Amino acid sequence: MPYHKELANAIRALAIDAIEQSKSGHPGAPLGMADMATVLWHDVLVHNPKNPHWINRDRFVLSNGHASMLIYALLYLSGYDLTIDDIKNFRQFGSKTPGHPEFGLTPGVETTTGPLGQGLATAVGMALAEKLLAKEFNRPGFDLFNHNTYVFLGDGCLMEGISHEAASLAGTWGLNKLIALWDDNGISIEGNVKDWFTDNTPERFRAYGWNVIENVDGHDSTDIRKAISQATKNTNKPTLICCKTTIGYGSPNKAGTAATHGSPLGKDEALATKKQLGIEYPPFEIPAKILEKWNAAEKGATAEHDWNARFKAYTQEFPELAKELTRRLKAQLPDDFSNMMQNLIEQNAKSSDKPATRVASLNVLNAIAPKLPELLGGSADLSGSVGTCWKGSVTIKPETMSGNYLAYGVREFAMGAIMNGLALYGGFIPYAGTFLIFSDYAKNAIRLSALMKQRVIWVLTHDSIGVGEDGPTHQPIEQVASLRLIPNMQVWRPCDAVETVVAWKKSLERLNGPSCLALTRQGLEPMPRNSEQTKNIEKGAYILLDCSDPELIIIASGSEVNLAVQAAQNLNAEGRKVRVVSMPCAELFEAQPQNYKESVLPLKTRKRLAIEAASADWWTKYTGLDGKVIGMHSFGESAPADKLFKHFGFTVENVLKEAKALLNK
Amino acid sequence: MPYHKELANAIRALAIDAIEQSKSGHPGAPLGMADMATVLWHDVLVHNPKNPHWINRDRFVLSNGHASMLIYALLYLSGYDLTIDDIKNFRQFGSKTPGHPEFGLTPGVETTTGPLGQGLATAVGMALAEKLLAKEFNRPGFDLFNHNTYVFLGDGCLMEGISHEAASLAGTWGLNKLIALWDDNGISIEGNVKDWFTDNTPERFRAYGWNVIENVDGHDSTDIRKAISQATKNTNKPTLICCKTTIGYGSPNKAGTAATHGSPLGKDEALATKKQLGIEYPPFEIPAKILEKWNAAEKGATAEHDWNARFKAYTQEFPELAKELTRRLKAQLPDDFSNMMQNLIEQNAKSSDKPATRVASLNVLNAIAPKLPELLGGSADLSGSVGTCWKGSVTIKPETMSGNYLAYGVREFAMGAIMNGLALYGGFIPYAGTFLIFSDYAKNAIRLSALMKQRVIWVLTHDSIGVGEDGPTHQPIEQVASLRLIPNMQVWRPCDAVETVVAWKKSLERLNGPSCLALTRQGLEPMPRNSEQTKNIEKGAYILLDCSDPELIIIASGSEVNLAVQAAQNLNAEGRKVRVVSMPCAELFEAQPQNYKESVLPLKTRKRLAIEAASADWWTKYTGLDGKVIGMHSFGESAPADKLFKHFGFTVENVLKEAKALLNK
Repeated sequence: MPYHKELANAIRALAIDAIEQSKSGHPGAPLGMADMATVLWHDVLVHNPKNPHWINRDRFVLSNGHASMLIYALLYLSGYDLTIDDIKNFRQFGSKTPGHPEFGLTPGVETTTGPLGQGLATAVGMALAEKLLAKEFNRPGFDLFNHNTYVFLGDGCLMEGISHEAASLAGTWGLNKLIALWDDNGISIEGNVKDWFTDNTPERFRAYGWNVIENVDGHDSTDIRKAISQATKNTNKPTLICCKTTIGYGSPNKAGTAATHGSPLGKDEALATKKQLGIEYPPFEIPAKILEKWNAAEKGATAEHDWNARFKAYTQEFPELAKELTRRLKAQLPDDFSNMMQNLIEQNAKSSDKPATRVASLNVLNAIAPKLPELLGGSADLSGSVGTCWKGSVTIKPETMSGNYLAYGVREFAMGAIMNGLALYGGFIPYAGTFLIFSDYAKNAIRLSALMKQRVIWVLTHDSIGVGEDGPTHQPIEQVASLRLIPNMQVWRPCDAVETVVAWKKSLERLNGPSCLALTRQGLEPMPRNSEQTKNIEKGAYILLDCSDPELIIIASGSEVNLAVQAAQNLNAEGRKVRVVSMPCAELFEAQPQNYKESVLPLKTRKRLAIEAASADWWTKYTGLDGKVIGMHSFGESAPADKLFKHFGFTVENVLKEAKALLNK
Repeated sequence: MPYHKELANAIRALAIDAIEQSKSGHPGAPLGMADMATVLWHDVLVHNPKNPHWINRDRFVLSNGHASMLIYALLYLSGYDLTIDDIKNFRQFGSKTPGHPEFGLTPGVETTTGPLGQGLATAVGMALAEKLLAKEFNRPGFDLFNHNTYVFLGDGCLMEGISHEAASLAGTWGLNKLIALWDDNGISIEGNVKDWFTDNTPERFRAYGWNVIENVDGHDSTDIRKAISQATKNTNKPTLICCKTTIGYGSPNKAGTAATHGSPLGKDEALATKKQLGIEYPPFEIPAKILEKWNAAEKGATAEHDWNARFKAYTQEFPELAKELTRRLKAQLPDDFSNMMQNLIEQNAKSSDKPATRVASLNVLNAIAPKLPELLGGSADLSGSVGTCWKGSVTIKPETMSGNYLAYGVREFAMGAIMNGLALYGGFIPYAGTFLIFSDYAKNAIRLSALMKQRVIWVLTHDSIGVGEDGPTHQPIEQVASLRLIPNMQVWRPCDAVETVVAWKKSLERLNGPSCLALTRQGLEPMPRNSEQTKNIEKGAYILLDCSDPELIIIASGSEVNLAVQAAQNLNAEGRKVRVVSMPCAELFEAQPQNYKESVLPLKTRKRLAIEAASADWWTKYTGLDGKVIGMHSFGESAPADKLFKHFGFTVENVLKEAKALLNK
């Protein structure tokens, strides 16, 4: 059997076996893409299986993540820390081989994929990171960053809207080291795509400024090799390689049909497929000589060794640069970060300014970003409104590809997935802004940040009906609560400048997950605090205005904290005992020890009033069955913000009314 | 002044005045698109200002909805029910002229726009509706449906991913009566788009199979007229007309810059602009002779009158067809709808089958869809999995454009917006399916269904960790609760086949909003019910298993109801008093009278246990501070579903444990 076929068949054998064993999975794509994968991984990819974290490795993203057995087979065969038992445990509880590839679970998986289209966009982020770090840290003779980013993608990825956003940006940015291989098998779940996917995809990608290599036989190793070779030589455009393939390649009765997409072949067809392919070894037993041919450990070690030598010489030549790069790749904040933030907190605490929290956030960036070159900002065409473009921001332009700020255009979803790619790559802390309402457009990318535990910071402004005249299409109602519901997400809704500084501090220090900063359009009064209260902001919720043995607790966040304080002051002046709890970040509060939580919200105090100009339901978590929430129960309206706050009951008068109703109950 | 300029200037004058008066708004686009709008609305558009509901009117969608003053000016000038006082009240509380165009608020506004890209996709839905209804109801000599759908869109719409999904489908479907006019002004909020929007848009749209008319001078009425005329002659492709314009046209100091985009021109610049344009009349005072030229009431009345005569003759020739069309356009369900549903409920109640609710849902469709030709189904390439393709489904193919089922491809967001267009058009009840997790991709279109009060039905299956092996990327956690948080959304999570029938019944009967059906992948036991309980399903929550004076109430939805019942039976057998409440639709429950709600969940019963294999937080609304929720607090995992339910505590044993902990508290 020809060398290439033998290697490709090993992938196919493992995919067939694992999917049969688990009685679940997607054989069509691994069988169809095995030839493409063999050329790329065996002949081309520069990587070190023994160190999946080597920074200058080629990146590989399987955007059509349901083909997960393809990547598990590749990782196993190449010599990554994945055993044949792991392959046997495909899709089983606690295994390293879950149904879709998951970052952090499997060595060598660069990003979590499955939600279609996002892998491509995340790969754009990785290729962008490479280009920017090369620009910043490479020196003549010292190409620390000079690798490619490869993506496999299917028809589904290309149908999704995010493929448009991501490909458009990749073209604009001229990411020539991004090489996408399209598994053009003409089949999606419902069958032949001719009835629902008629795009001229090559023409479409050329319209984005891509280099497109058409008519590649995705089962001909020479053809594939030639195409990849051409692609790697392009110096100013990303490349799309269109590989004609047969889904379920090798299956005598199912190849070329949707029947191979998402179900095991079945025992008989599995056997027949192996027979047709000429695979004669038993399940899960790849012959040693094939394993040997596949093993990339030695080649990988050499490649990394060469790079390490280069980096050592670089360190001697450019010690400061090397130190800075090392710091950034280790995700270490600068030594004086804590002091810097503490000073900023104190400085803001002394100020009587009443900035909108979106402005307070910009002030934070202006103060700290000069010390944090890893901050890579951006916005979905709303920089001026959302305050993400600080005074030292340099927008990265296509001609120069240098700077620290990205004009993502009106592309929220790709912005989210690209930030995921930047964060996964390392060396950057991506943050970006849009209106809170448009977090809806990026929802699943935000979710993937949380699932992948990535430090991605969303600056989400215009956070309530305070948007005013733009009306209900632009006024978030359910968005804050929806974001809070995402596991491992920290949502901040600060009530003034000081809380905004703390929100940034905690978001930057957070190494295991994303943060959302929900910020106001309108100015907010600074709240008075003693130093302990200021310290307690970090706990997510704290007593902002106290009294002994409270009969009523008012809990609020963001722009509504001021209403709570005013109402409480009023009531306390009347001799009532009312406490105000500011809760800028419920997720952090929940992570506190029980005794702290009890000290802030004693279980016995049942008269509780929550105020937030957003969905009321979420707050019942703290108000219980005896409390009350002043929140939103409908969409907003178009009118000046002050009129809306009044209309919807966000006034001191209404808070007093509701508080008294509770007190007198 | 030339006739055309005079008419266009009236738009510009009103836009300038209204935006100055409200001190808020977006003058750039109305000033820039006034010439395009004048040609289209004055010379081309077939519509009747006195009856914005006339079914065969041309549709007009302003996809770049921030240009709202453009459409308000057009409506006022054309003679719609919009007064100069309405224009003066632009963006004020309770006005008919909100910040972004809102369907239902302003006569003549066909759809709510503002969230970019969705207007285009919604227009695709409208053009599709026209084509399908024409196919179904037109007869030789009786073209009841033969109008065009026009869309204005800006760079922002074209950057958004949904523009890709929608344009791709429009091309595939050959929607030749869809004519999009691109306001190609080269400016978005952050300035000249050359740094972030470099697509060759004409080439891109040709790749989708569109007819593209390039290089139209968007300020030259002859040029625009010629282009529209060409477009209307195309018989097999949608058309994109690329109009080169100047944003803020006429403003001597700001035209061509982003400064005109989202802020009033300012008093001086407003005056200077009017001077440069040659507008000499005072604010809000369009001269009578211009108003007269603009007024389209007579022409519109004639057009509708002709159509009415045609429809009258049609009614005589094809009485059954006319009757059926009238029924559908009035959104009336067939006379025997209630009986049919009642029979189906009873039939299911007798069955001991244990279908997954996704299968139960398909069974409903198989039973009722033959009687409801207005059902227009579809799926985002998951028909087989989500059970939306019933036995009478005929997939609409590009060659024939006939049938009752849409293969949307992997395009959830466009699917949502297209369904909005279909629902707004009328004559159809759009429903479509995808996995619940991917509602994230369509989130903002789902929100717009709710905001626009449209009857759109989402079939969202694989509704929990019950997804199993596909793992956390495919297992919804926060999605059910997030959908419940959308105002005016009804989310159903039925526990068995009978509840699934009721979910469909209520969703179909609902004329003022969308519904989401969250359905299981896995089979569910039928629950026993008496006829009153069955009737009470419609109330959104009801007592499924009772006892006198309960000490504990277990509340559950969907697949977890069975756990609740088993645990309660166990406990009651031990002499405890436990009630089970099934809550398939919390939104409907909340709409019940207080005494019903109290009868189901008496406030005094504080020992409450909620069970749902989804975000726990949302359920605290019913469990309060003394209850407990068995829910999800993390992402899921990849493993067989039964293993996951056990791992995450969704077992009778764990329910018993938690119930006893509450009982013994």
